[in-house]
Amino acid sequence: MIGILGSGTVGSGVVEVLKSNFADISKRIGREISIKAVLVRDITKKRKNLEDINLTDNPDDILNDGDISIIVELMGGLHPSLEYMLRAMEAGKHVITANKDVVAQFGEQLFSKAEEHDVDFMFEASVGGGIPIITPLKECLAANKISLIMGIVNGTTNYMLTKMTEDGCDYDEVLKEAQAKGYAEANPAADVEGLDAARKAAILGSIAFNTRIKLDDVSVEGITSIKAADIAYAKELGYVVKLLAIARDYGDKGVNVRVHPVFLPSSHPLSNVKDVFNAIFIRGNAIGDAMFYGRGAGALPTASAVVADIIAVARNIVSGNKAVIGCTCYNKRPLCALADTESSYYIRLWVDDEPGVLGSIATAFGKSDVSLKSVIQTRMVDDHAEIVAVTHVVQHRKVETAAELLRNLPVVVKICNIIRVEE
Amino acid sequence: MIGILGSGTVGSGVVEVLKSNFADISKRIGREISIKAVLVRDITKKRKNLEDINLTDNPDDILNDGDISIIVELMGGLHPSLEYMLRAMEAGKHVITANKDVVAQFGEQLFSKAEEHDVDFMFEASVGGGIPIITPLKECLAANKISLIMGIVNGTTNYMLTKMTEDGCDYDEVLKEAQAKGYAEANPAADVEGLDAARKAAILGSIAFNTRIKLDDVSVEGITSIKAADIAYAKELGYVVKLLAIARDYGDKGVNVRVHPVFLPSSHPLSNVKDVFNAIFIRGNAIGDAMFYGRGAGALPTASAVVADIIAVARNIVSGNKAVIGCTCYNKRPLCALADTESSYYIRLWVDDEPGVLGSIATAFGKSDVSLKSVIQTRMVDDHAEIVAVTHVVQHRKVETAAELLRNLPVVVKICNIIRVEE
Repeated sequence: MIGILGSGTVGSGVVEVLKSNFADISKRIGREISIKAVLVRDITKKRKNLEDINLTDNPDDILNDGDISIIVELMGGLHPSLEYMLRAMEAGKHVITANKDVVAQFGEQLFSKAEEHDVDFMFEASVGGGIPIITPLKECLAANKISLIMGIVNGTTNYMLTKMTEDGCDYDEVLKEAQAKGYAEANPAADVEGLDAARKAAILGSIAFNTRIKLDDVSVEGITSIKAADIAYAKELGYVVKLLAIARDYGDKGVNVRVHPVFLPSSHPLSNVKDVFNAIFIRGNAIGDAMFYGRGAGALPTASAVVADIIAVARNIVSGNKAVIGCTCYNKRPLCALADTESSYYIRLWVDDEPGVLGSIATAFGKSDVSLKSVIQTRMVDDHAEIVAVTHVVQHRKVETAAELLRNLPVVVKICNIIRVEE
Repeated sequence: MIGILGSGTVGSGVVEVLKSNFADISKRIGREISIKAVLVRDITKKRKNLEDINLTDNPDDILNDGDISIIVELMGGLHPSLEYMLRAMEAGKHVITANKDVVAQFGEQLFSKAEEHDVDFMFEASVGGGIPIITPLKECLAANKISLIMGIVNGTTNYMLTKMTEDGCDYDEVLKEAQAKGYAEANPAADVEGLDAARKAAILGSIAFNTRIKLDDVSVEGITSIKAADIAYAKELGYVVKLLAIARDYGDKGVNVRVHPVFLPSSHPLSNVKDVFNAIFIRGNAIGDAMFYGRGAGALPTASAVVADIIAVARNIVSGNKAVIGCTCYNKRPLCALADTESSYYIRLWVDDEPGVLGSIATAFGKSDVSLKSVIQTRMVDDHAEIVAVTHVVQHRKVETAAELLRNLPVVVKICNIIRVEE
């Protein structure tokens, strides 16, 4: 029997999927599965989908119930979700969660507790919503050394960037539209500033490199500085702007996990991932390049992942099997500092429109040991000349040095944006 | 210990992956894994990758070896692969194969035998090469009722159609190029006539609908009739031509599994799958639309899937777990006849260039109860007028009736092609 903590969007989605696909799910498990109780905040509130289900506002009713062998945590947030999950494990219950916050921050503690009490701990829905990615990474790609993961893992920002690309409109306008459609929250910070993607990046990086990546290890940059002009230049140069969660193995230098906007070639499989869809691109030394695509959020897609975990755990219970995979962070990899990572860069800046400007800019790049692929002066904006430079692959620290030199040049009005270019 | 049957491309790929990722694979299993012997055809032949491995040309050396608990069948073909696998199971050995022929034709027999002897039977590499699709379908998407699978599952034909689309060249020219590059075999029939894709369609359909689909249940049409003109019209109308393996649930009418070329909207995720890449698009009632993308063939990608199966089976052995998933064909769904399936259709035909022709063609469609979205007379070819008609969604049998009527019209020179249009 299952106990569900939380009856929000995902909670009611899980109930709906368990109900509507009941017959097939029972066949797959080899036994009928039922929901013993759902923890809700307000027990007096009417809930359409939960009419025939036992509701409670007391977590003890679920956590102390000996009939319940699987706890599904769908409350979100760090506390008391973490404490409830730990208590459930201590009581010998298997735990399933969709909570990226708690996995990204307390994954190690949860895995230790699960191991200690010999229970399953699963969290497929925490990254990519319905897209199977945790199990594929841990099991289906287990033969590979993963060198790179690039993921579009936040639907809100992908919707916004898609609209900016297709309609040419600016950030503020698109944010309002996304809020009106319910794709962005009233306070959109967690999405647009990249924090949501960073949590998922930490989880993906940990599994890919079998080393513990915590949220604090992830460098984060959101999409708030992306202008219509950047999108337009990207298009002109054959790129699409995407917010990516990137986990890359730099060998002896360590691994780096980060979130930032990227100019991605329009022929890249991730470039065609539009609107609120998510996709995770993976490079392994056996499989080569692969990609997993689908809906990264929403009640039913997320429930698809949660219920898959429920089925897996229930199958283990029915067949008397032990949890097999568990924590896979058996390595201790050093972190590669962001300054040591390499990439090409797009740099857009405004300068005084006078002779010799291009020369002094090129000199600043040269002094910083940054080799340029192209520098073009394109148009006038408010009496300033707009210049777009694209570098060859170069260390991040050198680009930062170049930016510092440029900012100090009298002819440079401002650096409008610096965006990484993936080839 | 593992025994490998077959030392061709995939066989040496599996050895290479096991060797190069040995440390990580051992950690993932919790024990070191080793290859006891490899069955080869010619034991005197030098093999670079297998120098330190025990080779034999006698299958009994492997099948009767009590130290070997996992048999990996990579010989291909129906016989004696089937017999070796059955013998292995009878001896209590777990069996892993990459052999789509034998799974599509003798899947039921193999599963029964595996169940009888309580061993694992796994075949991730049989569809989509390295792309994880069997395990995701059986486990990660287990919460869903699957209504549709559309797969680009044959790299040769996808390469050819991509070249025809990008370079505008004709079928024969592209086939020669594909053969020169090693993407197509000297006798390309199995690929270009759709048989390879049909085997994979049978496997995907069986798993998606939990009902046994045999190779004979799959209707098959290849790409040999696709002309440069069809590709050009597709592009003009906003489509891309792809050879798809399709498994669709028609509810009470049953399920239909087929392989044929399709006009796919250029915005569809499968449309961007180019060259030898494969992808499987899945629609489920919880997850919505999802797609799995990667390399569908090649030594290392296929080995990635085979070794993932090895790791899964080895983990079960180490932890004392029983095989959990096994055969999932617990339903008996009726088959929906091809004539009863529905689609839009593109029809290209040559007619005499005289007044009233469009009228008599439209009448023939009308008599067959086929409603047209558009009919356009486009160009002259050898003194004939070329006409392209696109229908609304209609039963296949009605389109066949219309084609028969058209063929009997004196003004119709010939029907050049009829291709389904997916929206």
